[in-house]
Parts: sequence; C-alpha cells; structure tokens
Amino acid sequence: MPVITLLTDYGIKDSYVAEVKGAMLRISPDATIVDISHDVGNYDIESGAFHLVRAAPYFPSGTVHVGVVDPGVGGARKPIIVKTRGAWFVGPDNGLLAPAAERLGVEAVWEITNTDMLPPRVSDVFDGRDVFGPTGAYLSVGVPPDRLGAEISGMVRLPIYTPRQDGDMVYAQVIHVDGFGNLVTNVTYETLEEMGVSGDTSFKVEAGGFELDLPYVRRFSAVPKGEPLLLVAGGGYLEISVNQGNAAEHLGLGKDDRVTLHLK
Amino acid sequence: MPVITLLTDYGIKDSYVAEVKGAMLRISPDATIVDISHDVGNYDIESGAFHLVRAAPYFPSGTVHVGVVDPGVGGARKPIIVKTRGAWFVGPDNGLLAPAAERLGVEAVWEITNTDMLPPRVSDVFDGRDVFGPTGAYLSVGVPPDRLGAEISGMVRLPIYTPRQDGDMVYAQVIHVDGFGNLVTNVTYETLEEMGVSGDTSFKVEAGGFELDLPYVRRFSAVPKGEPLLLVAGGGYLEISVNQGNAAEHLGLGKDDRVTLHLK
Amino acid sequence: MPVITLLTDYGIKDSYVAEVKGAMLRISPDATIVDISHDVGNYDIESGAFHLVRAAPYFPSGTVHVGVVDPGVGGARKPIIVKTRGAWFVGPDNGLLAPAAERLGVEAVWEITNTDMLPPRVSDVFDGRDVFGPTGAYLSVGVPPDRLGAEISGMVRLPIYTPRQDGDMVYAQVIHVDGFGNLVTNVTYETLEEMGVSGDTSFKVEAGGFELDLPYVRRFSAVPKGEPLLLVAGGGYLEISVNQGNAAEHLGLGKDDRVTLHLK
Repeated sequence: MPVITLLTDYGIKDSYVAEVKGAMLRISPDATIVDISHDVGNYDIESGAFHLVRAAPYFPSGTVHVGVVDPGVGGARKPIIVKTRGAWFVGPDNGLLAPAAERLGVEAVWEITNTDMLPPRVSDVFDGRDVFGPTGAYLSVGVPPDRLGAEISGMVRLPIYTPRQDGDMVYAQVIHVDGFGNLVTNVTYETLEEMGVSGDTSFKVEAGGFELDLPYVRRFSAVPKGEPLLLVAGGGYLEISVNQGNAAEHLGLGKDDRVTLHLK
Repeated sequence: MPVITLLTDYGIKDSYVAEVKGAMLRISPDATIVDISHDVGNYDIESGAFHLVRAAPYFPSGTVHVGVVDPGVGGARKPIIVKTRGAWFVGPDNGLLAPAAERLGVEAVWEITNTDMLPPRVSDVFDGRDVFGPTGAYLSVGVPPDRLGAEISGMVRLPIYTPRQDGDMVYAQVIHVDGFGNLVTNVTYETLEEMGVSGDTSFKVEAGGFELDLPYVRRFSAVPKGEPLLLVAGGGYLEISVNQGNAAEHLGLGKDDRVTLHLK
Repeated sequence: MPVITLLTDYGIKDSYVAEVKGAMLRISPDATIVDISHDVGNYDIESGAFHLVRAAPYFPSGTVHVGVVDPGVGGARKPIIVKTRGAWFVGPDNGLLAPAAERLGVEAVWEITNTDMLPPRVSDVFDGRDVFGPTGAYLSVGVPPDRLGAEISGMVRLPIYTPRQDGDMVYAQVIHVDGFGNLVTNVTYETLEEMGVSGDTSFKVEAGGFELDLPYVRRFSAVPKGEPLLLVAGGGYLEISVNQGNAAEHLGLGKDDRVTLHLK
C-alpha cells in the first residue's frame, strides 16, 4: 500500500492535519499516512527541514513525503514536486524539502501548475489541504508528475550551516534540542569520518564559557548516569548528551549556540 | 478500505484513544482511523462541534465520524447514529454532531439501543470505547443501523451563535482561536455571499475598543508581513489574521469576543 | 492486516516516532500502526507499563505491542520478545512489558540476539527504531521468534505496588492521575470481587488528612455534578473521580499518595 508522510507546523489541537488527511484519502484511499511532526514551530522552515532529513531515509522505497511549513503560502514561492532515488517530496519551494531530497539524491523537480487536478477552493491559505496533500496523494497512486505540473531546473536551498573543520578542530553549532534535552550539532557522521574518527575517542569541547573533555561513544551507558558524552544518534549528527539526563539543562546550552570540538 | 475519524476530549497522554482504536479494529480490521483532534478541552462540546464541522466535509464518501465529548456519559443523553449524505456520525446526542451532520445533510437518526452487539463492560464511563467506537466500526463494515438501534425523530442541536446581519453590517463573534492565533468568527462564506461580497474588498472592523479598516483578501501575502487582514480560510468561516503573525496577540482579542464588521 | 501498537517516551515533537514507523513499514508494509502514548515521561517505566496494561486487552488477537521506555538502552538489559495468549510484546527487559504480558498470559520469552535480521546502524542509542520496531514488524508478518532470537526462561518484573487487603479494609495507593484528574488506584476489579463488592455500595475513604464517605457506582451521573465518587473505569482499576470535575484538584491528591478504603 502507498505510504505518505506528513510534516507540518499546524499543531495537533486544530483539525487542520485531519483535513489534509481527508483530502489525501479521497484520492489515495489505501494510503498509510504517517505523521512526522506537526509541532515544528510556526513558520520554522529550518526545524521542519531538520525533522524531514532525519526521518525520510527510514521509510520504504516509493514513500511520498509531504512537507508544509509555508510562511509564504499564497505568495510567489512555487509549489513543487521533487523526485529522488526511492522517494517523492511535495511542498513549498522554500528550502524545506531540499536537505532531505539531497540526502536521498535529487533526480528531477516539477512546479505544480495543473490546478485542474486539484479541489476547488475559496481562498489561497491552505495549500497543505488544497495543493500539497492532493498532489502527494496523486503521486502515491502512480499519477506521473507531468500530469500535475511542469519540470523546472532546480529548487531553493536553505543556507544550511555547515561546520568549519580545520585539522582536528571543528567549529560547530547546536541546530536542534530534542525532547530529551540532547544537543544536536551540525557535525555529521561524514565529517567525523573525514577527521579519521573511528571507535571510541574523546574531544575537548568548548562552549558557553566552559571547557570539558567528553568521550565519543556508541552508547549512553558508556558513562555513569548523569555524566555528559558525545555520540552520533539516529540522525547521523553528532550530539552532546547526558546518560539518563538532560544535556541542555546540564550544560546550559541551547539552539544556535556555538561549540568548538577538538579531537584529542 | 473503510475510513473512520475520531474526535475526543481524551488528550493523547493517556491510553484512552488507543483503547477506542483497538476496540474499532476488532470489528473493522481494515479500517483507516484518522484523528481529528483529541485536545478540544475537557467537556467542551462547542469546540468539538467546531472541529467536526470543519473537518468532515474533506473526507471520502462513506466515512464514519465518531465524536466523543460527553460530559453526560452514563446519564440520560442518548447514544446516536446520524446518517447524512455521504457520511455517518456516531456519538452522544448532546449537540456535538449536529453542526457537521447538518452541513452534510441529515437523512436519518437512530438511538443505539442494541447492547447485545457491544462488548461487555464493568462500568458506564467509557462509552467512547464501549459504545461509540464499536458502533462506528460496525457501520464502517456495512452493518445496517437498524441492527444497532432504533430510528428516532431527531437530535439535539447546539445553540450555535449565528451572526446578526443588517444590510452591510454584521454583528459577529470570535468562536475559535487556532494555533497560529487566527481569530475565527461565526461569519460564514454563505453570509458573505448574501451580502454581495465577491473579490477583494474591505471592512471597517470594530472590536475591543478599536476600529480598523481591514482588507478582505484571498491570501495572507496580500498585505505586508505583520499586517492584519480578513479572509475565508479552509473552514468556510471569516477569519481575522495577521500575515506571518498572531492576530489574537496583535489585536488583543480572544474566544467569544464580539466583532462588528461594516462592508465598505 | 497486521496491527502493531507503539508506546514510547519519545514525545511527538521530534521525528523519532516516525522513524520507528518507517522502519516497521519497510518490513510490514500493510501494518496498521496504532499509537498508545508517546508522552509517558522520559524514562518512566512504571507509567509506560500502566498505559500498556490498560490498552493491550482491547486490541485484536495477534496484535504486536512494541514498547520502548528504555533508560538502559545500549547497556546490559536484554531486548526481548514475549508471546502471550493472543498477542506479542517487544521491548527492553526492564519491567515495562511484564504487567501487560502477565494480564494476557505469558507463554514464552525470547532474547533478541539475531542482529543479522536488523538494519545496520552507527550507534546503540535508538533501539526503538533499530531493534524493537523491526522485530515487532517481523513478528507481525509471521516471522517465527526463533528466527529472531533464543528462548529464555523469564523476564524482569516491576515491583508493582499491590494493595494490602484486610477484611473490609484496603490499604491502597494512587498509581496514575489521568488527563481528567481521575485518581487511579492500584485496587483492581478482582480485589473488589474478592471483597464481595457487587452492585452499588460505599466506602469510607481516608487520605491526605481527610475522611469521606464515597459511593461506589457505575456511572459519574450517579452523584450530582461536582461531587466525588468511586468507580471502576475502563482499565479495571478503582478510581476516585468527580462528576464532570477534577478529582486530583478537588481532593488535593496525586500520584503515589496513600488511600485507605473501608467497605461499609
């Protein structure tokens, strides 16, 4: 059965997410619809992109990912479809889809232009339900993208912060604090591999006026309960964590804080 | 596959919603169950009715909508089934279902009386799981309502606030503030059509001691970022919004506040 | 179609729950996945166990329940599979699964040892997605547990608090406060039956410095609005409730508070 994921900033208190799902099921009645998150912060494209790039690689081949964090709804930004190796992405062309699509490998991009395929509407403020949801549903049942729009040359990319690496130093930044208080940095697993990190080692970490030696490990329990550590969690990003604790509170760090890591 | 929606005031922290879904899947194993909202405020029938009337029209024909906001559970209010054009509604007869059912067009109403069809139970406090969920699941697999209860003549209607229209004036009220801070009024698209509103225009808006000229538009981006506007959003209700901002905070208005609109 | 439930302490703001579901759908593409709760309190095994024991009995025969509240992830606790009459449980062997599995009737337990069946990974901190989710998905499509691990003799049990009963007295404790403020005690329906409680009666209740006569009833509306009462709600546990009110606030009681009940 087709799998469609849904990421929005609609929250789950209102009926908005359900309206999108209803519109999808009208077109793709057998779809399995999976929520990625609806609580990414109103209009917070960067957080939405982060959740999407984390989650997308774990879905079955052929999954359609519909993402709607869309401060420019009704304006000039294009509604787009992105075909990647093994998945589709649908949403506004504002950078939300780019990191996830590029991680999977972009093959082609279309602008959604064929409004004849879409439901009628009384305003232009709910493209999640009126454009992106139905478009994702069409793709999930095999409607070719050329029926829905016209191919275009590319898409908007977010100015994603990439850490500056200099030998055994990395100048990094906290890009997300999760519900456990883990501090997700913008240092990827690939960067660590380039630095020659393999197996357990440790870093000198400077941030917010303190300096700490932290072990780089594969499991929380490598340090005593309540102690900080570094590891690469599910998303492929280096995180500062505390075993059974809250690293953000423990270290007094938050989103956008800068962190310098020195491989020892 | 059958589609069942679920609207409750159970919250999502407890296992209650899952228990209802388990009870449904025992009867309708292939059902796609879609959450409308479980965060409508404990015992807040009016908010529940608002979410249901918004969402129901977007679901496929044949959808069964189960709504449970039920302060009178175990008491004298009747458990009912409502057949409408293209959908079923199941829930307590306390006004929760009426606005949505009437929007779709009521065809017949049954009281659920055949408890032989329902699971055994040790108390009468969880009709969502023990009565409404199973009843909705039976309808979703084609069990006729006469097997589940007896037809009755009508159902309880909420005293829904309807705006008073007088020429080019409308005396309205805020009936909902959504997660973005949009102020949803009780003025429907139909009322605007009766007033001859078509295309872009503007209203003089009086509320909470201020008076503002607001444009009536189809998209947020018709005004600069941070500026207020009027539009009909997805639900068919006139909303006061702020482009990429929070209208409730911007204007200091909230639920139940009165708003006078003067078409210019 | 296979039914899989999911209970975690991941919250719904992050993409973690979606990642688990994606990993499940890769193996069990037709699965219906039902959330029990993702908001049980970080690392709160006891609350997780409570939600699971409440919800599990209401699901169809053959359901696979995946529970992940796992402070010891990556450490010495075993990943296990439990076969019960009519259901499977998968999760860490830390007591989370035991109450629900024992309520349904444990038949056998396996340790998950065959990592060849599981997806590759870069760290050992996300067993929900990398071990428990995929294992549950395999079971849901009929893979026998012997392919996934090796049978073991038993599992870890939580020190569940059981009330001390002495004639017509029960020394009980509040084990959960739900979203409505209902005070769930550890007194089960079975205990009440042993005490000869049948039909409406009343108890003298001592707790937190007060003493109250409370009726034991089957429905909230047996007492006036705003009045306290005792009843057995869905989960089979005796609860102290207030008709259309919040018992926790009304009585000033909370989780872990002791309550003495004297059958009159």
